[in-house]
Amino acid sequence: MGAHYTLETGGASAEVIGAANGLSEADLEAALPRAERAERALVEAREEGLAGFLDTPLHGEMADAVNEAAAALRGRCAVLVVCGMGGSALGARALLDALAPEGPVGLPGGRAADRPRILVLDTADPAVVAPLLDRLPADATTWNFVSKSGRTLETAAVYGVVRSRLEEALGAGWRERVVVTTDPAEGPLREEARRERLRSLEIPPSVGGRFSALTPAGLFPAAAAGVDVRALLRGAAEAAAGFVSGDPDRNEALRLALWLVLLAERRGRRHHCMAAYARGLAAATEWWRQLWAESLGKEGRGFDATAAEGPAFQHSLLQLWMQGPADKAFVLVEVEDPGADLVVDAPGPPGAPWLARRTLGDAHRALAAGTAAALAAAGRPVLRIRLPSLGPAPLGAFLQLWMTAAALAGPMIGVSPFGQPGVEEGKRNAAALLGEGEGDRRSRVESLLDRMRRPR
Amino acid sequence: MGAHYTLETGGASAEVIGAANGLSEADLEAALPRAERAERALVEAREEGLAGFLDTPLHGEMADAVNEAAAALRGRCAVLVVCGMGGSALGARALLDALAPEGPVGLPGGRAADRPRILVLDTADPAVVAPLLDRLPADATTWNFVSKSGRTLETAAVYGVVRSRLEEALGAGWRERVVVTTDPAEGPLREEARRERLRSLEIPPSVGGRFSALTPAGLFPAAAAGVDVRALLRGAAEAAAGFVSGDPDRNEALRLALWLVLLAERRGRRHHCMAAYARGLAAATEWWRQLWAESLGKEGRGFDATAAEGPAFQHSLLQLWMQGPADKAFVLVEVEDPGADLVVDAPGPPGAPWLARRTLGDAHRALAAGTAAALAAAGRPVLRIRLPSLGPAPLGAFLQLWMTAAALAGPMIGVSPFGQPGVEEGKRNAAALLGEGEGDRRSRVESLLDRMRRPR
Repeated sequence: MGAHYTLETGGASAEVIGAANGLSEADLEAALPRAERAERALVEAREEGLAGFLDTPLHGEMADAVNEAAAALRGRCAVLVVCGMGGSALGARALLDALAPEGPVGLPGGRAADRPRILVLDTADPAVVAPLLDRLPADATTWNFVSKSGRTLETAAVYGVVRSRLEEALGAGWRERVVVTTDPAEGPLREEARRERLRSLEIPPSVGGRFSALTPAGLFPAAAAGVDVRALLRGAAEAAAGFVSGDPDRNEALRLALWLVLLAERRGRRHHCMAAYARGLAAATEWWRQLWAESLGKEGRGFDATAAEGPAFQHSLLQLWMQGPADKAFVLVEVEDPGADLVVDAPGPPGAPWLARRTLGDAHRALAAGTAAALAAAGRPVLRIRLPSLGPAPLGAFLQLWMTAAALAGPMIGVSPFGQPGVEEGKRNAAALLGEGEGDRRSRVESLLDRMRRPR
Repeated sequence: MGAHYTLETGGASAEVIGAANGLSEADLEAALPRAERAERALVEAREEGLAGFLDTPLHGEMADAVNEAAAALRGRCAVLVVCGMGGSALGARALLDALAPEGPVGLPGGRAADRPRILVLDTADPAVVAPLLDRLPADATTWNFVSKSGRTLETAAVYGVVRSRLEEALGAGWRERVVVTTDPAEGPLREEARRERLRSLEIPPSVGGRFSALTPAGLFPAAAAGVDVRALLRGAAEAAAGFVSGDPDRNEALRLALWLVLLAERRGRRHHCMAAYARGLAAATEWWRQLWAESLGKEGRGFDATAAEGPAFQHSLLQLWMQGPADKAFVLVEVEDPGADLVVDAPGPPGAPWLARRTLGDAHRALAAGTAAALAAAGRPVLRIRLPSLGPAPLGAFLQLWMTAAALAGPMIGVSPFGQPGVEEGKRNAAALLGEGEGDRRSRVESLLDRMRRPR
């Protein structure tokens, strides 16, 4: 449904930025059979139980479950700590930052007083965890451990520490301070939830971690913060209706995937950069970075992904983007209605009298448009995505758009967009160094690390 | 001085990761004349007044000025808002996050009660600025406007809004709530400070924005938060002593620049990724990303720069790094002593009994080492930098190391590392769209934007 966002591709077209830089109608037409094959591959993946993210927005019972779990926190929880890594943290953060941001530097946010503050803890760095445990009141803090597989090392380590601390402080009452979000049937975290009768939420088996933003992994923290998760899911479902319609003209996810894949292959723009002109979307761009990098970066293929926040990137990356190697394609995301605005009074600030009687929103939009135009004029391909506002429905549609685009781009470039086979090795090395089984691996890794140390 | 950090290059050497992936002794020796030319170019830039960052750590009067300005806040300022873009925000954030982090989710940090909380505001997004102005008490908030040139559009826009609000609330007393950090002699912000007799601090003329972390741009917010800025500068000065010694064996910045430039040119690793295994260094990696991207991304040259935080990146980018295109070189930054630690009690968490009696610090270090080994074993070049702790002296040395490496890498690849000529176009477009002079530009940009909108 176009209503939740618009996608403009003109700034990446040969017509506007030249044949050496942009795609022509002929490029796009030639790729149609490939796009159709990708659509079929996604339908097959869905039938094989790999692409459950396409269907989760339709699950009314999921919204019920998270709303109920969130309601149980009200009035008895000052802080909710969401402990998860990667997809188990980025989705929650994307939803929270856009829809229920914390107030700045400890000032109260716009949230009801009986809603918890929410901290997404995606690290086992003791320099972070230790002060947190010292300062959070055990009897007013709830810990949400999130891991699809239930085997995430960092999450397990923090769970181990937190459980002991809570037991010490609260005795048997520790169980009421933990909510587990994991696979409904399998994995060590699910087993623990059963053994200890912990409150738990389910990530459907057909949904992988980085596709789990619109499952309880993201939805429970959002609901706890007061986000209307039904509206979020409705936006996603309305967007998804076009993606699975079988009609390529209604499939904006397919169009998006196709443009980015072809810009990479035909015009050498293998590095995809997303910049959002809304502070509330900064976490969503980080979420996108994982989705795009981890879904497609396989078998020597895939695209580099950079997440940036406009206009901050204009003062940090734009120089490279404008005048560095011509190997990038840009996705600028804008929000039309910022929700609040402020007028710059006359005579305007020093050095910029023309800002007088303009609003900060005007300045923000002009910077977005001015930068988009500068990139296009320099022959750098620019796609623009606009959301009418930063409400739950447009955000849900935006996330669904990108999950579907990633799932379609995979088969286009010949890799499976699901799974992450390349990350196991580092984890196994770490476990071996910590004393887990495999003595052979430990000595192999230690010897390699020793050689890496020389020459100092 | 090696004492503040160690740099290990073995993981990027041909000896360890193979001749197709790593550099040989011969590669490095062949590049020595070029390294020497780069050193001479930097000495010349310093003489021309472009590389003042080499000398600022030695300026005792700078520390006095920021400490005095910080002392003036004590007891009368609840919040200090640092308003700046790019280098005027990233340096402050790097120092604050590492050395004086805010407490989590509104909990009190480890800071003395008479120190202000500090918010770095690097956006003019009205969705951020409007609630901030509503919630911050005018008579207990100080605004620090930071811009080397004094012409930053976003900073000017926010200044325009804030000044009116403060005047409304405080009358003539608004002046006591503003501190300006800019060029000592030039620019609209300096003129405003003179006209209105505002308290002001100076960024030396020879220091550009992204090299200004160790000038009042970064030091004043750090001092306000209670950071020992003399120790920070001492660390930087001790590191710098090696960089300007004329002895390549003592010049770790030269070694670092040389490895990264040669990995790009000789082994196709043009995308440089920094991951820090310490949450406190997350902002420093963002600072580095700007420094590396904007200093070197010119004339079609330069390197892509990705900033990531370990271990979060292991769950978002590692898949791409391990199995995507072999075009990246990695810099893993580790902090040996996390400052605090926590033991995982027996029997250990579900699924990971081998974590029992280990600490979170052990897990963290094992993940860093295990990942470094996995990358190297996959033929992906890894440099490792270790800091003994996250104190002010090692951090100062680390920042000085990278500023010098960027300033040396520039002449190595044939671009000036100072200036950012590519960012002007977007700014001029924005100003034109907002009604500044140039009507021709406005109609040109509007027509281009219109063409970019089609096909929708």
